[in-house]
Amino acid sequence: MKVHNFNPGPAILPSVVLEKTAEAVKNFRSTGIGIMEISHRSKEFEGLLNETIQLLRELLNVPENYSILFLGGGASTQFFSVPYNFLDKKAAYLETGHWAERAIKEAQKLGKVEIVASSRDKNFSYLPKGWTIPTDADYFHITTNNTIYGTEILYDIESPIPLIADMSSDFCSRPMDIKKYALIYAGAQKNVGPAGVTIIIINNDFLNEKQVKNKVIPTMIDYKTHVNNNSLYNTPPVINIYVVYETLMWLKNLGGLSEMEKINIEKSNLLYDYIDSSKMFVCTVSNKEDRSRMNVCFVMKEGYKDKEEEFEKFAKSKGIIGIKGHRTVGGFRASLYNALPLESVKFLIQTMEEFEKKYS
Amino acid sequence: MKVHNFNPGPAILPSVVLEKTAEAVKNFRSTGIGIMEISHRSKEFEGLLNETIQLLRELLNVPENYSILFLGGGASTQFFSVPYNFLDKKAAYLETGHWAERAIKEAQKLGKVEIVASSRDKNFSYLPKGWTIPTDADYFHITTNNTIYGTEILYDIESPIPLIADMSSDFCSRPMDIKKYALIYAGAQKNVGPAGVTIIIINNDFLNEKQVKNKVIPTMIDYKTHVNNNSLYNTPPVINIYVVYETLMWLKNLGGLSEMEKINIEKSNLLYDYIDSSKMFVCTVSNKEDRSRMNVCFVMKEGYKDKEEEFEKFAKSKGIIGIKGHRTVGGFRASLYNALPLESVKFLIQTMEEFEKKYS
Repeated sequence: MKVHNFNPGPAILPSVVLEKTAEAVKNFRSTGIGIMEISHRSKEFEGLLNETIQLLRELLNVPENYSILFLGGGASTQFFSVPYNFLDKKAAYLETGHWAERAIKEAQKLGKVEIVASSRDKNFSYLPKGWTIPTDADYFHITTNNTIYGTEILYDIESPIPLIADMSSDFCSRPMDIKKYALIYAGAQKNVGPAGVTIIIINNDFLNEKQVKNKVIPTMIDYKTHVNNNSLYNTPPVINIYVVYETLMWLKNLGGLSEMEKINIEKSNLLYDYIDSSKMFVCTVSNKEDRSRMNVCFVMKEGYKDKEEEFEKFAKSKGIIGIKGHRTVGGFRASLYNALPLESVKFLIQTMEEFEKKYS
Repeated sequence: MKVHNFNPGPAILPSVVLEKTAEAVKNFRSTGIGIMEISHRSKEFEGLLNETIQLLRELLNVPENYSILFLGGGASTQFFSVPYNFLDKKAAYLETGHWAERAIKEAQKLGKVEIVASSRDKNFSYLPKGWTIPTDADYFHITTNNTIYGTEILYDIESPIPLIADMSSDFCSRPMDIKKYALIYAGAQKNVGPAGVTIIIINNDFLNEKQVKNKVIPTMIDYKTHVNNNSLYNTPPVINIYVVYETLMWLKNLGGLSEMEKINIEKSNLLYDYIDSSKMFVCTVSNKEDRSRMNVCFVMKEGYKDKEEEFEKFAKSKGIIGIKGHRTVGGFRASLYNALPLESVKFLIQTMEEFEKKYS
């Protein structure tokens, strides 16, 4: 039976990426040894690393004065690295979900934080509106996509102060204007690779001018360490970077981020339109403009609440996996990351229709 | 041509591990999806994680009151995590090489450090002798194997204060007495897996009693975070942990660490004996009891110094890779980690003999 993988991350990868990785595990680029067995100081690996950086530069149109880093430790390590490097007097945060809360918690451990706006009052089911970025803060931190709640900031914010974005769950899902950001970080495991590597895009002028002065920063969380060493200060996660490379190649061959965005719009519209027309299912995010293209969250309507477990079983019996919603939201979440094919979205809708017909 | 991979790390892995990984990349344990596509919250992954922990418990005979963690960020992240958690008044360090120096540098950023002994005077070509561990320090930190210089502490030190060891390059190369250590950390990429995951074995009593009180510690570098969440506080490096699992299975099937130690002794003795009898090559570590089983460092004797580049080319032409010494030592380094077969050591010796015959 074909598996339709809607996992929220780690998530589905393109099948060509899996094929190439399986090959490279045994023999990387005809070296006679596997990708996990090559030295990170070898010309073969440095070549791969620089090609991966170049691919990201091309796909995202990254300006010259930005560095691109590949680090271990996950986005969670960035939650404290960002304030460690840049929080001097005060930092501003937008509180849009669980991961934003975690980022805020780490910043609060290290300094003063102003929460510019929050959607906590309604369990993060919408994006806060009408807020103003304080010009006296060192930076403004946002979480562009909120995996658990299914909301997404789908445009590049204009910020009067340096803008820092956790893009872990929508990185490379659309073209974006990198110039508007001082620092972007993203765990690779949603749209561009496997768990175990975090991508950082940082404006070097911002780093040089705005890093807190006269502060003792552990070497590994000082961004300058990794910028100055091209991510090779210590041994990087080699195979994880390789898989990112192959995933970016797949993205490029598909037509790049404009093309990817079109497909992501098509996939999410199809599913949202079906749910909005359904008698049984309803989206947890009612404001259409706040809805995530990456994570479509929905529950059963009143009168059908007792059918949730049965629907999950029914879907599973058809090969649909990973659609159980996060425990704080309940219901279901279909993650439609880059590599999830349109065909799987259609199959999910067909399965939902079938279930609905059965019970109405 | 067969490649003989003497890389210093990332390093050779058992071929069965590569075969199994290539399979799992496409289909993990008949789930129909690859190891990089499964959720870290799935029962499949939690099963794998717990089996990996269990394997390490068995192989190393880890007592019940120790936790085993799998984290990202490399051993370099541990360099500052250790003092962040445990350096209160003073920490004691043994300075035996480059990585010990880096660990010391990070501790010095965070508190007072006493360097108990150092072999820096002779470029770390021996292990310091006759030192005493200060009983007023919070902990004593050692680097058990010095990859660059080819020295190794081959026994478990008795310490009157908590003993912390960076075992990145000899972890699981011999049986050891875990009880003697408060905390062990090791990047996996030498003996037990790929780059991208660091293994930590920590005594929970030590953690609970000796973690610095009333100190703000970022969540990700607080060991309690990971102990309390079984390494699942954030998304762990999934495929990297899988490869560790397969490598440990290979170790277990081979007969465990006693058997592995016998093989490692045989491999290193064979090469050291040959070098000691050679007219052309000489070991950089002259004290036999200080010599590493993992990294055999050697240079050309006086009169043959100009032949180094030629020997490297000659070896390469035979399929021998990764034997160039670190720039701070020069000459050659043959890394004989667990997965390097005896056959490759014999082939290296044969190649050295052939070269020696040609020029003497």
